[in-house]
Amino acid sequence: MTGLTHDWPVQASTFCEQFECVDGVGNYDTVNNVVIPASGATEPRAQNSLQHSWEMNYQEAAIYLQEGENNDKFFTHPRSAHALSAYLFAHNHLFYMMELLTAVLLMLLSLSEAPAVPSLRLDVYVHATLELLALVMVAFELCMKLRWLGFHTFIRHKRTMVKACVLFIQFIEAIVVLVRQTSHLRVTRALRPIFLVDCRYSGAVRRNLRQIFQSLPPFIEILLLLLFFMVIFAILGFCLFSRNAVDPYFNTLENSIVSLFVLLTTANFPDVMMPAYSKNRWSCIFFIVYLSIELYFIMNLLLAVVFDTFNGVEKMKFKSLLLHKRSAIEHAFQLLVSRQRPDGVSLKQFDGLMRFYRPRMNARDCFLTFKSLNQSGATMLSLQEFYRFYEVIGLKWKARRSGEHWFDDLPHTVFLIFKGINLLVKSKAFQYAMYLVVAINGIWILVETNMLNDGVSWTRVVPWSYIVFLTIYGIEVFLKITGLGPMLYFSSGWNLFDFSVTVFAFLGLIALAFDMEPFYFIVVLRPFQLLRLFKIKQRYRNVLDTMFELFPRMASLGLTLIIFYYSFAIVGMEFFADVVYPNCCNTSTVANAYRQINETIGNRTVLQEGYYYLNNFNNILSSFVTLFELTVVNNWYITMEGITSQTTHWSRLYFMTFYIVTMVVMTIIVAFILDAFVFRMNYSRQNREPLGDPEDEKGIVFETEVSQTEALQTLDLYKHTLRNTNLSSLQGMCAALERCGQSSLVFLGRRSRTKSDLSMKMYEEEILEWYEEYSTTNLQPDETFHRSLNSPEANATDSIN
Amino acid sequence: MTGLTHDWPVQASTFCEQFECVDGVGNYDTVNNVVIPASGATEPRAQNSLQHSWEMNYQEAAIYLQEGENNDKFFTHPRSAHALSAYLFAHNHLFYMMELLTAVLLMLLSLSEAPAVPSLRLDVYVHATLELLALVMVAFELCMKLRWLGFHTFIRHKRTMVKACVLFIQFIEAIVVLVRQTSHLRVTRALRPIFLVDCRYSGAVRRNLRQIFQSLPPFIEILLLLLFFMVIFAILGFCLFSRNAVDPYFNTLENSIVSLFVLLTTANFPDVMMPAYSKNRWSCIFFIVYLSIELYFIMNLLLAVVFDTFNGVEKMKFKSLLLHKRSAIEHAFQLLVSRQRPDGVSLKQFDGLMRFYRPRMNARDCFLTFKSLNQSGATMLSLQEFYRFYEVIGLKWKARRSGEHWFDDLPHTVFLIFKGINLLVKSKAFQYAMYLVVAINGIWILVETNMLNDGVSWTRVVPWSYIVFLTIYGIEVFLKITGLGPMLYFSSGWNLFDFSVTVFAFLGLIALAFDMEPFYFIVVLRPFQLLRLFKIKQRYRNVLDTMFELFPRMASLGLTLIIFYYSFAIVGMEFFADVVYPNCCNTSTVANAYRQINETIGNRTVLQEGYYYLNNFNNILSSFVTLFELTVVNNWYITMEGITSQTTHWSRLYFMTFYIVTMVVMTIIVAFILDAFVFRMNYSRQNREPLGDPEDEKGIVFETEVSQTEALQTLDLYKHTLRNTNLSSLQGMCAALERCGQSSLVFLGRRSRTKSDLSMKMYEEEILEWYEEYSTTNLQPDETFHRSLNSPEANATDSIN
Repeated sequence: MTGLTHDWPVQASTFCEQFECVDGVGNYDTVNNVVIPASGATEPRAQNSLQHSWEMNYQEAAIYLQEGENNDKFFTHPRSAHALSAYLFAHNHLFYMMELLTAVLLMLLSLSEAPAVPSLRLDVYVHATLELLALVMVAFELCMKLRWLGFHTFIRHKRTMVKACVLFIQFIEAIVVLVRQTSHLRVTRALRPIFLVDCRYSGAVRRNLRQIFQSLPPFIEILLLLLFFMVIFAILGFCLFSRNAVDPYFNTLENSIVSLFVLLTTANFPDVMMPAYSKNRWSCIFFIVYLSIELYFIMNLLLAVVFDTFNGVEKMKFKSLLLHKRSAIEHAFQLLVSRQRPDGVSLKQFDGLMRFYRPRMNARDCFLTFKSLNQSGATMLSLQEFYRFYEVIGLKWKARRSGEHWFDDLPHTVFLIFKGINLLVKSKAFQYAMYLVVAINGIWILVETNMLNDGVSWTRVVPWSYIVFLTIYGIEVFLKITGLGPMLYFSSGWNLFDFSVTVFAFLGLIALAFDMEPFYFIVVLRPFQLLRLFKIKQRYRNVLDTMFELFPRMASLGLTLIIFYYSFAIVGMEFFADVVYPNCCNTSTVANAYRQINETIGNRTVLQEGYYYLNNFNNILSSFVTLFELTVVNNWYITMEGITSQTTHWSRLYFMTFYIVTMVVMTIIVAFILDAFVFRMNYSRQNREPLGDPEDEKGIVFETEVSQTEALQTLDLYKHTLRNTNLSSLQGMCAALERCGQSSLVFLGRRSRTKSDLSMKMYEEEILEWYEEYSTTNLQPDETFHRSLNSPEANATDSIN
Repeated sequence: MTGLTHDWPVQASTFCEQFECVDGVGNYDTVNNVVIPASGATEPRAQNSLQHSWEMNYQEAAIYLQEGENNDKFFTHPRSAHALSAYLFAHNHLFYMMELLTAVLLMLLSLSEAPAVPSLRLDVYVHATLELLALVMVAFELCMKLRWLGFHTFIRHKRTMVKACVLFIQFIEAIVVLVRQTSHLRVTRALRPIFLVDCRYSGAVRRNLRQIFQSLPPFIEILLLLLFFMVIFAILGFCLFSRNAVDPYFNTLENSIVSLFVLLTTANFPDVMMPAYSKNRWSCIFFIVYLSIELYFIMNLLLAVVFDTFNGVEKMKFKSLLLHKRSAIEHAFQLLVSRQRPDGVSLKQFDGLMRFYRPRMNARDCFLTFKSLNQSGATMLSLQEFYRFYEVIGLKWKARRSGEHWFDDLPHTVFLIFKGINLLVKSKAFQYAMYLVVAINGIWILVETNMLNDGVSWTRVVPWSYIVFLTIYGIEVFLKITGLGPMLYFSSGWNLFDFSVTVFAFLGLIALAFDMEPFYFIVVLRPFQLLRLFKIKQRYRNVLDTMFELFPRMASLGLTLIIFYYSFAIVGMEFFADVVYPNCCNTSTVANAYRQINETIGNRTVLQEGYYYLNNFNNILSSFVTLFELTVVNNWYITMEGITSQTTHWSRLYFMTFYIVTMVVMTIIVAFILDAFVFRMNYSRQNREPLGDPEDEKGIVFETEVSQTEALQTLDLYKHTLRNTNLSSLQGMCAALERCGQSSLVFLGRRSRTKSDLSMKMYEEEILEWYEEYSTTNLQPDETFHRSLNSPEANATDSIN
């Protein structure tokens, strides 16, 4: 034990200099950041300060690893002890949640601010006060960040600076509102999403935005080409068609340009051609040529360019993330090795690190993680082994069960029954019988719905077919749960889906039985049972699996889109609130869409109902729906022209800008889906394994065998050196080993497969190249360290990097 | 010379057995297809039959090479002398043209058949007779094919069989029409494009169709997913919204499905939501979820799947073409080598081949092509050298000019003037000055057009700005032509574009001056001058270059689309001709679009003009325009509902099928553009060269140096052995060599770069693998040949292959 006591870390933590451990005992070498222990210092004091020094190192190593995981740049790494305390304060889930809630609150305020959703309207002083409070919170968060980063780094961090500026403006405006007791034209509210984007939890959104901005330059170049052709054709169109008096689309150059812009989106297509076409049939050539060039060629070119950029960006992003993680691991490794054994991390140090990095992880899992890293079998982890840190850190450990089934331990008769059920539910026949039932159910629903042409009666009586099919599904779920055991059953996404659909159907039945109106919608979800049919074919399984895999990323893209929506909604509300109403736009070309009047056609009187007044900017929810309609593009010019006729010509700029912005985002979404699918297909082709393989569904699995002696040794080690740890998990392991009666036990660590794992496999060869390139440009930290002993500059550049 | 006289070919032509040369002199080894010359045969007779034997071999080798070039399978290779004569009859441009014209005539007949274009209407007996004539021509062509392929192969060739069946049906129908003197319901006319597709010149269209069919299986799978979700949502929508009496979109299950199908194309978007949305604002969620899943996810998935398949198919196609060509070259090589020197092709044999393969090629070019293949410098071409045959065959040869400029030989003063002009037009300043002029012209046109708000006056007086700018452009063109020389000037596509735009502008000016109404459209093309601005930026040059490079392929895709259009137009005309007219559809939901009536709104009377009756199937031209409108998709449901209201519900099937078919073709077009651009970008990235590089524009260049002695030797050789060749080109070469006074002259062979060249460079490594794979599965022809001496079966399988 005494041997270990004097084992000082090779490199001291940056925070360490502030503490007595250095001033008192070691001579702190300020140039090289290395603590040289004073030989012959008094034992207890040395041990105490050694302990402290190690703790500091563990903490900093954990911070490095966290930074590597979150892709935080190292120049924001805390550099001193009080920076550390601010860092720790600002880096925990409570703080993150506060940050997120404040940002969400600020955004939600627009529900109750001046053009408010009627049921959520708040008094001016109420919402202004709420806003001020939220802004104070944001200011407090910024102060913490300032304290942690230091003024110099704070100024250099662009995002934070923008946030500070926006905060300042919002603050002043909120005070002005509070003083005047009325909202003025507050377009700056459109900047509120910045607070949301800056949240720790919005990392994915930030990545998307970065990707969008990276794709912009080539996008804009092609966009210019598009607009250029548009202008040329507008001049042509004006020259050709302006003599036609009944053609409202080309009577001025401005109208001509607007018509062709709308035609680009096809939203006014045959209509824009019709007046010219009715006069001269050959005029259709103009429109066919225009659409062929613009819509079918240049628009696809846009997609091609974005797709290509996207492809490159995705790979580069993966590369830089990978290298950043590697560098983080190297930094951490340097802080964990000791002076006596400078090329290995022992279990003790690893456990110390984990206490900071994953405070909730128990000693057993920590030991198993260490063992799974430690492939050489030595007592120390080398840097090469430690590089795989991020691959094993997310593993969930479990002892491999000796038996196959959950009912193995039950009495024999019961076992046989369960075994029978197990065999039944695993049989192909059972599966196909269920598919058949679902298919029959599908046809039944279709026929039933088709017969039922008034759509009202079905809510009153429960049809018997509903009960029959539900009973079958219920029995299936019951059999499967008992046959496979709940753990195995719920581990499959498809089973979860079956289960929840069945449960919802039961709830619907109850709703029907007790006649609860608002829950009828559950009954309506019945057809979703049919989705189960898609399990039959491999390709559909792949598609749906990929769909679920893509879901997080899609959600973040959706969120990004919503952020754009929010900004546009605010601007729209400020300028166009309460502008359109029934019969508002009788002077415009789209009057029909807003007209709500009894009119006489021939000699009949009919109610003509134009609903477009509903597509307005009267509150934020309506604005969102209107913007979604604009995103879908069809008939968007009706909304545009309606509002333009009530305001000025410049309103068109708003709609055109919105179209272009959504076009960018949508193109990127398309490029993303394309990329993700093509990637997966290439992956499965390269690795010659079907993606929906049952083996594959389990994700990543690591195996670690633990012998009895090893377990006892570890327990012993923990007992002696790491007194403050909770040892129950390790004791449990030893007990399990004894119970099973074998000399060793295999533990399985599982985690789900991420895109990063697929990329690792796809780019295998390139990754090795990158590593080489990386290690030649950045010196190995080992070498850096040795060099730093001689040249202080080298160390300085390293720490900035 | 006598040494050469007895040099029999290693392998005799397949046609040879029919001729006296074998029966009379050589003993024909029927098992191995090898002619063994009878030693000691009478000299003149042997020489005569040897000559004949070689001629046969040249011809068959040329046929093999042609088959390799056209990707004709070898099983259609002519196997006997009378098959050969039919083959030769059916394989020349006269026959191809006849084939094409017949097919086009058949298709054009629908312009004048019963619902005809008014100005082109023909009497029934006229068009039926024309049709019969055309069909007889097709039958004649088929007979030739039967004679060439032999009955057995003819039956096996699917495309030809289909053609024969269609021909038979059309024949009977044409006779029926002629007898009854009236057209019956002739939906089978929709099959007429088959004759066009089968033409030799429609190879690109056939390839596209094959690619479409290859992409179909995965496409259909995803399409089913799409339709499945559609049905589920239709049931949901029916359940949710059918209680709303004013909602016409969901009142029956059928309407619900149709509405959601149309919504898939977004054509009815906000409208389909509005009745539900006005009742309950939350109903928008249904539509947002539907569109997100169907339009933004599954539709993109379709594109991803097609893109992925397309990618793979493109590469496989390239591979199989490459290997097919290689195999053709090997077959040809075997026929060209002689028994005495079995591993090389001499110039004499090569020239003999070229007389059949490229009859128009002169002796000099043939010699230069031989030399460019012959890299080792030996007198014979080895198989390895001969493999590059297709790379050099398209080269256009020209002696490298000693001077740089076309005016080098002029007197000194004139030379200096031209040199000055040359330097001027090549200078950056001149170029940018011209860009500036074009930009000013652009702004001028824009401002002028904007000022001019009635669009009539400009046609009467010639604006002075027009004359000024045109003069500048004229001077520029003149300077460039004189400075660079017409050859160099017109070799650049951009200069050609400048030239034609300027000439058109001049024509327009003349039209203006002489007040010729129909030519005004030329004046209108003026803004296209602005396109020249895009030369400034590299990326635009790339884009436009790629656009021109893609043009042939795009045109063939367009033609493929037109073939689909044609079939649908015929079906549409048969069922929907004269169905819609103004005010026809007052009972349908789209009555407004067809209404043409004075109506009273409030207390004003306005003419409501619905133009949709113009989108009809009254003749083939109108049908094409209508189908284009359906392709653009916007508002297509108006046309569909209008026609449905005048016919039956089943008409919708026609429109939905058409939508799905165009979706397939359009998705493939998008995938093609994506693929082509991504390929080019990858290519330029891999080869680290900008695509628009001036060096690059020249295409592929081969250099061959010819010394004087070599030239004279060749002339001599030709004079003695190949008496019937026209030697003027070779004599010209010798004269040029003498004139230039140097001992050797360099000749440059150029051709434009094709996609295949790019692919060769892209897949360099894979190509080597393919070759290896190919040579291990198919034995080298050398070996096959030697093996065939022992085992007749091996040879038999080889010839079938």
